[in-house]
Amino acid sequence: MVSRPLSPLTERYDAVLFDVGNTLVEQILPGVPTSSDGARLLDGVQAVFEVLTGQCRLGVVSNTTTMSGIDLRRHLQTVGLLEHLEIVVATADLGVHKPDPLPLAHALGELAVDPVRALYVGDNESDRVAAEAAGMDFCFTGPDLFAALARFAAHPRSAWERAASAMREPDPAYAADLRRHLDRLVKPVGALGDLEELACRLAAIQRRERPVADPCGAAVFCADHGIAADDHVTPWPQAISATMAGVIADGRAASAVLARIADVHLEVVDVGLAFDVPVDGVRAERVRHGTADVRLGDAMTPEDVRAALEVGAATAERLVAGGSRLLCVGEVGMGNTTVAAVLISTLCGVEPAAATGRGAGIDDATFERKRLLVSAVVSELADERDPWVLAARVGGLEIVAMAGFIVGAAALGVPVVLDGVTTQAAACLAHEFAPWSTLTCIAGHRSTEPASSRALAHLGLRPVLDLGMRLGEGTGALLAVPLLRAVCAAAADMATLDDIL
Amino acid sequence: MVSRPLSPLTERYDAVLFDVGNTLVEQILPGVPTSSDGARLLDGVQAVFEVLTGQCRLGVVSNTTTMSGIDLRRHLQTVGLLEHLEIVVATADLGVHKPDPLPLAHALGELAVDPVRALYVGDNESDRVAAEAAGMDFCFTGPDLFAALARFAAHPRSAWERAASAMREPDPAYAADLRRHLDRLVKPVGALGDLEELACRLAAIQRRERPVADPCGAAVFCADHGIAADDHVTPWPQAISATMAGVIADGRAASAVLARIADVHLEVVDVGLAFDVPVDGVRAERVRHGTADVRLGDAMTPEDVRAALEVGAATAERLVAGGSRLLCVGEVGMGNTTVAAVLISTLCGVEPAAATGRGAGIDDATFERKRLLVSAVVSELADERDPWVLAARVGGLEIVAMAGFIVGAAALGVPVVLDGVTTQAAACLAHEFAPWSTLTCIAGHRSTEPASSRALAHLGLRPVLDLGMRLGEGTGALLAVPLLRAVCAAAADMATLDDIL
Repeated sequence: MVSRPLSPLTERYDAVLFDVGNTLVEQILPGVPTSSDGARLLDGVQAVFEVLTGQCRLGVVSNTTTMSGIDLRRHLQTVGLLEHLEIVVATADLGVHKPDPLPLAHALGELAVDPVRALYVGDNESDRVAAEAAGMDFCFTGPDLFAALARFAAHPRSAWERAASAMREPDPAYAADLRRHLDRLVKPVGALGDLEELACRLAAIQRRERPVADPCGAAVFCADHGIAADDHVTPWPQAISATMAGVIADGRAASAVLARIADVHLEVVDVGLAFDVPVDGVRAERVRHGTADVRLGDAMTPEDVRAALEVGAATAERLVAGGSRLLCVGEVGMGNTTVAAVLISTLCGVEPAAATGRGAGIDDATFERKRLLVSAVVSELADERDPWVLAARVGGLEIVAMAGFIVGAAALGVPVVLDGVTTQAAACLAHEFAPWSTLTCIAGHRSTEPASSRALAHLGLRPVLDLGMRLGEGTGALLAVPLLRAVCAAAADMATLDDIL
Repeated sequence: MVSRPLSPLTERYDAVLFDVGNTLVEQILPGVPTSSDGARLLDGVQAVFEVLTGQCRLGVVSNTTTMSGIDLRRHLQTVGLLEHLEIVVATADLGVHKPDPLPLAHALGELAVDPVRALYVGDNESDRVAAEAAGMDFCFTGPDLFAALARFAAHPRSAWERAASAMREPDPAYAADLRRHLDRLVKPVGALGDLEELACRLAAIQRRERPVADPCGAAVFCADHGIAADDHVTPWPQAISATMAGVIADGRAASAVLARIADVHLEVVDVGLAFDVPVDGVRAERVRHGTADVRLGDAMTPEDVRAALEVGAATAERLVAGGSRLLCVGEVGMGNTTVAAVLISTLCGVEPAAATGRGAGIDDATFERKRLLVSAVVSELADERDPWVLAARVGGLEIVAMAGFIVGAAALGVPVVLDGVTTQAAACLAHEFAPWSTLTCIAGHRSTEPASSRALAHLGLRPVLDLGMRLGEGTGALLAVPLLRAVCAAAADMATLDDIL
């Protein structure tokens, strides 16, 4: 009998193969010998093997380039997994590097299992590529392997469906426990101010006794808006979006510099740019070449909305599988403060005039056109709150992807630090898709755009920073990371009054 | 003829000896061979040798433990200094480690110069200790060696006099240049908000084309107040100050954890604790065992004020000589928000009631006593603004030391990030000693103490953070460092519009 959450897996697959480092055990550094002391099974692995052993063929296909099959077996024996495994393949023994389907094909050949009846589980994009090339299904791990497989079992085809069906809320018991701990530290009660509240929120979201801000990953979603095809609301041509995506990928935009300084892994995702990015390093997930002009009709189709949500949710899954326990989100998209103003005005019940600002900087005539357009669309939308309708009507692809990302991260219990007004609009949209996702959001900063304060109030969030910024690209989120890291370290490392008295 | 600023040196000394790494050339890592490419003379070194050569005996006593005299001579030849030197002593050749007076004594013996007629110039506390043990005078280097020697020549006996006589103001030309550069970067003009203004201020203070936030050093000055000998204004006994100094030194207080996270070198300085610190690691510079009770008379004598200013200014000199180009300042001192309220009320023209808060947390009865005391002392001081009188009347030793530190850093062109209300009171006091020192201050955060906002307004500073904190120990300064570091990196590393268009 297989426990219910994983039973669809044993019906669908004859074999389940696992990556090792970061999937089953803590990452083994190539070339560093692991002792029995050092080996530690990750959360949920024990439960997975208890349930699956005897129910389907189990194996390991490891990516270590320095560890031979003999060493790998010894390592798996140390952690008590070897007895559960029918086959152990070390990629190094086959003389290939991942991503390569050969080790997976080799393992399935030995087991005599058809690839379409096999699943590979890993932490890394290269694992996914190898599985796809081998004709197998693939599942990313997460903070808990059992939970990741259970989610996958219920919705094998869609990261968005896995996310939206999770309804995972922060656990206030962790916040209360941490509150008691913080009050015992060698400082006046509450003396770290808002940072103490943030630490408690992180603990509740992560369901950890001591919250962590590392590893930290960031995603910058890039897309274009039909409204920016002429200079109606912004003097910046659409082509600038692709240019900026490239400058970020090249490490020379503000977000890239701040991510480097803050030790954050940054990914740039093209979810709908109108133009091609001139350099490598931008992840190609384009749903379509920008949205349609909202002056002429819907920005995109419901299918586009679903595809953008999927990109966002899958990005969150991938970053979390890779180890991120805190995420930042940001965007690039010429014209998107216009769309953000429409969404915030509609969803937060704010007068269009009070929600519309000058974005990256526009003259009076453009500002007047922008205000009229926002008013017209908001008035047309009336009290519409269906996120599918709103998203299709106004876009944008990057905003919808960010909503998917936020819900995806929330489903995995990983906090998301929001950037400015456009990511806040995405968080408002995410709230309509999955109200519980809002509890996972941290407001990195207050933007100078007037809609920012309204959105933050609607979401019930107090920003970490209030520095008069309005850059986008995730910069306001990235700048908040060192402060979150600091309070996590304080909670973990400070002495208590009992220690010193 | 020796150029005027250094002429007192040649009158006073027959020989001047220099440390090498970090004093004459960029630090040589032990064991790393230096190439001619890698060797770089530090600012002001060329000018010093041009002036002193032929005017007094010059030599080098180096601290490298791995570099022999032969290697050292080769290195000095590469940078063009060897011809100016009469003697080169490598400490490693003598089989000793610094701090040891032997290499210095050896050099002076070879030159046949009496130690009282000799000066040693170095970057490190161990250099100073060795010079003192050898019976020589000692001068710390600074951001510019010529400037450091000129300052020393004018006031050889007092770091405070060197600081107070400097009258060094930020150079607005550097701010304007950086403003133009920031406006050319790949972002909307002004989009990094307050951080851009901060970067421009740093550039003007440091007189650098691109400002830097590293290396960053911090000093936490610790002292006690007679007013805290009973529970009149605070429930915390004086002994807690020494305990907290020890917990910081042990790395387990908030400031120590935040300094570690922010990669800041932290020093804890006992400038006047009432009790002994139970652990090592606190720098002993105690002027007296706490101040006297302000209810009974003056907190300290004018001599105490001078001594505390000297501790502060010398600490700034030492940290800057060691490489710090940004400094943080903080304090520990039970009862010191009472003194801060008196100083801010008096110097900023604020009603005593509006300047008095609950500090680390006090009950209503204690708060009422605190308000009455602050009112009484402020009323007695009337319009007194003489900082010597104010400091002697109310103290405290840590506040006066911080004022000395702020003026000392300002004199060296090194920005100081202030913590909360007590450091802000020290900055107000520093302003009365040397008004130009205020231009070198960065406000790390706004404390919840009501006097904090009044002091910041008086100083003309906008805080980086506003997180409802009230911890002290420099925590609000340390938390601002990553943001300053981020904008310095953005200014240095971001692409310009010209680069990408």
